[in-house]
Amino acid sequence: MTGLLIIGDEILNGNVQDTNSSFAARLLFGNNIPVSTIHTVGDTEQAIKDGIANMFEKVDLLISTGGLGPTKDDITKTAIASYYNTALERNEEVLADLTARYAKRGLSLNELNQGQAMVPAIAEVIHNPVGTAPVFWIEQKGKTLITLPGVPGEMRYLLENVLLPRLREKFVTTAIVQKTINVIGIPESELAILLKNVDEEIEQAHTPTEHYKLAYLPNLNCIRLQITGSGGDKNQLEQKTAYFQKAIENAAGRFIFGYGDDSIASHIGKLLREGGATLSTAESCTGGYLAHLITAIAGSSDYYWGSIISYHNLVKEHELEVKPETLEKYGAVSEETCQEMLAGCLKKFGTTYALATTGIAGPGGETPGKPVGTVWIGVADKERSVTKSYFFNRSRADNIHLFAISALDMLRKFIKED
Amino acid sequence: MTGLLIIGDEILNGNVQDTNSSFAARLLFGNNIPVSTIHTVGDTEQAIKDGIANMFEKVDLLISTGGLGPTKDDITKTAIASYYNTALERNEEVLADLTARYAKRGLSLNELNQGQAMVPAIAEVIHNPVGTAPVFWIEQKGKTLITLPGVPGEMRYLLENVLLPRLREKFVTTAIVQKTINVIGIPESELAILLKNVDEEIEQAHTPTEHYKLAYLPNLNCIRLQITGSGGDKNQLEQKTAYFQKAIENAAGRFIFGYGDDSIASHIGKLLREGGATLSTAESCTGGYLAHLITAIAGSSDYYWGSIISYHNLVKEHELEVKPETLEKYGAVSEETCQEMLAGCLKKFGTTYALATTGIAGPGGETPGKPVGTVWIGVADKERSVTKSYFFNRSRADNIHLFAISALDMLRKFIKED
Repeated sequence: MTGLLIIGDEILNGNVQDTNSSFAARLLFGNNIPVSTIHTVGDTEQAIKDGIANMFEKVDLLISTGGLGPTKDDITKTAIASYYNTALERNEEVLADLTARYAKRGLSLNELNQGQAMVPAIAEVIHNPVGTAPVFWIEQKGKTLITLPGVPGEMRYLLENVLLPRLREKFVTTAIVQKTINVIGIPESELAILLKNVDEEIEQAHTPTEHYKLAYLPNLNCIRLQITGSGGDKNQLEQKTAYFQKAIENAAGRFIFGYGDDSIASHIGKLLREGGATLSTAESCTGGYLAHLITAIAGSSDYYWGSIISYHNLVKEHELEVKPETLEKYGAVSEETCQEMLAGCLKKFGTTYALATTGIAGPGGETPGKPVGTVWIGVADKERSVTKSYFFNRSRADNIHLFAISALDMLRKFIKED
Repeated sequence: MTGLLIIGDEILNGNVQDTNSSFAARLLFGNNIPVSTIHTVGDTEQAIKDGIANMFEKVDLLISTGGLGPTKDDITKTAIASYYNTALERNEEVLADLTARYAKRGLSLNELNQGQAMVPAIAEVIHNPVGTAPVFWIEQKGKTLITLPGVPGEMRYLLENVLLPRLREKFVTTAIVQKTINVIGIPESELAILLKNVDEEIEQAHTPTEHYKLAYLPNLNCIRLQITGSGGDKNQLEQKTAYFQKAIENAAGRFIFGYGDDSIASHIGKLLREGGATLSTAESCTGGYLAHLITAIAGSSDYYWGSIISYHNLVKEHELEVKPETLEKYGAVSEETCQEMLAGCLKKFGTTYALATTGIAGPGGETPGKPVGTVWIGVADKERSVTKSYFFNRSRADNIHLFAISALDMLRKFIKED
């Protein structure tokens, strides 16, 4: 069994969102080294030592992140030395490497960075090409401890590129197959009722060696359905999970927009690319977030032309030809304004499709009859247009996200009806 | 001591990023109920029971999240009943409430949602106004377990609005004062050297009852410096942490852009508002993310007018008056194009400042002499303009983030020099 030990007061006081454990868990799971538990502890010697001892009661492989920086508040190294009853000693190889790397950039090692060359005597030191904190690999009594720095970029690089090949050799035991189906536009409990028969079939598919499971992973208005098969023979797992996926497609096909890592934005990208179509946007309340979701997809420049972000009403008038009378009479958050934004966007960019949003993300900006969370979204091509209003009642950030996701889903449906 | 138990296979296999623990930890810490450890376990009865038992060896208050949904994969309730040797029984009040809420929306309770009214017999049931999963509060042998649903919006609402007042009454013991200082543009180890004396002073400030600590929280190119004082008298903590903050300002003032929750975008907002100034943007590689960072700040419509997202070169030509010859001769990612984008943006929007980005976020798009991660960023007002190139060598998402943060930092410096 494998565990992760996340070290840092900043995680325990909520000042930093830990993303390392999620990255590590996903990478390890995908490589058949599933993580069975994750513990987060603070930056004290006792908490770290207790954390290691507690985890080693359950796991054979323990990967820690954090507390390896050059500053005084980072004490993972000291705690590890104490846990293993070993000393910290200067590693000349690490020191020479750090000195050379600093010299290349015309810098000399300051005293704090020199301290990075002090390592627990019993540790195997693994070279860190992307930072100053060396990685330790310690094996004792059948238990393996690996320490990684907490800076996400470094941690990710080291785990994926430096450690993974060796971990795969030593720790892979069970076959795992996973299929993820991405669903939008149906509440979780309704979906579960649609899938009742499949769910039962999955539960009855267990054998003495194979185990199957269906998980519902809701996130705002999307749900990821995850079929996991583990144990036994990989081919057998592949066949059965593929069969279950087909059964889910038959039962809930019209709500499925993609598979695996597909996001609604990457799915839109595929649809546009397949159709040789192009897209532009006109955003008010989403303020660039819709464009960001679209352009977060590598290669989106092939189909996405650009956006007018018309936060100010004058920009709506000048850039999107929204009439002052329309803004005056119906307001910026209205079907009429949304329609004119769409028409202006299509005219300006000449793309196959245009997508427009205008709403109130909050917390301010409420007007009579238009509470915070109201949005008008529209999609159009040369022949037709659809506008629709939605209402969400969440934080500013969640509202912006829901507005943008809803816009992409409207575009998805619009394209499919073509 | 307080612990969080995060329940869900989707966290352990890395398919869902847990944000609940960070939210809960931050809220509790801010209310003097610091979290001392966080454990994540899977959706099996044994793992949940072991998790509770293990945590109760260390903590008196345990808050769990997750596994309370209506679908079969959610088994927290069953595990809790088993841990406490109690039965699940139907709670008529919960059932009546759910039925009434569904009826209001013209729906009848489906069988899965009816199951939400089954609760552990020994639990005090707390009404959940924002979802179907009731909250359980169980006290036994001096240990308190509280279960929250895993859906972030629900969990946040319940913890903050329903549970917090009661938790404050029962669990607040220690005074805590925290000051956060936000820094940009200096590496962590250099900053630590600047702050060496302050750091020592902080370490020597301990008394038998008071404890002080300085933490460095780096995140890409920003660092949050966090002074924490705990124990003893609140006024004393306030005074000493304020003194340390002043000492840090004296030592590293030119790198400080804000305090507490300030982001570089909210800081820019303050600067613009104070100066009665306005801003518009012209984005290529950042694809709306820069506008999103700016408009994520509530009230940004007071100073932010909008953006031209010119993903396609034709949009650069038509909307920002970038000359075809410039694109031809120097390429889209060049100082010359950046300067023309700036001029076009300023002319089009007539705002006080314009900010422009053009670069290669990757992984594709590399051209000779312009590797992935290259970006030109420019800022201008009517009198002057500055353009600068940066190079980052990270993932597409990180590059986009670093481009946008660097742009905001350039604007910050530009405004301060005014």
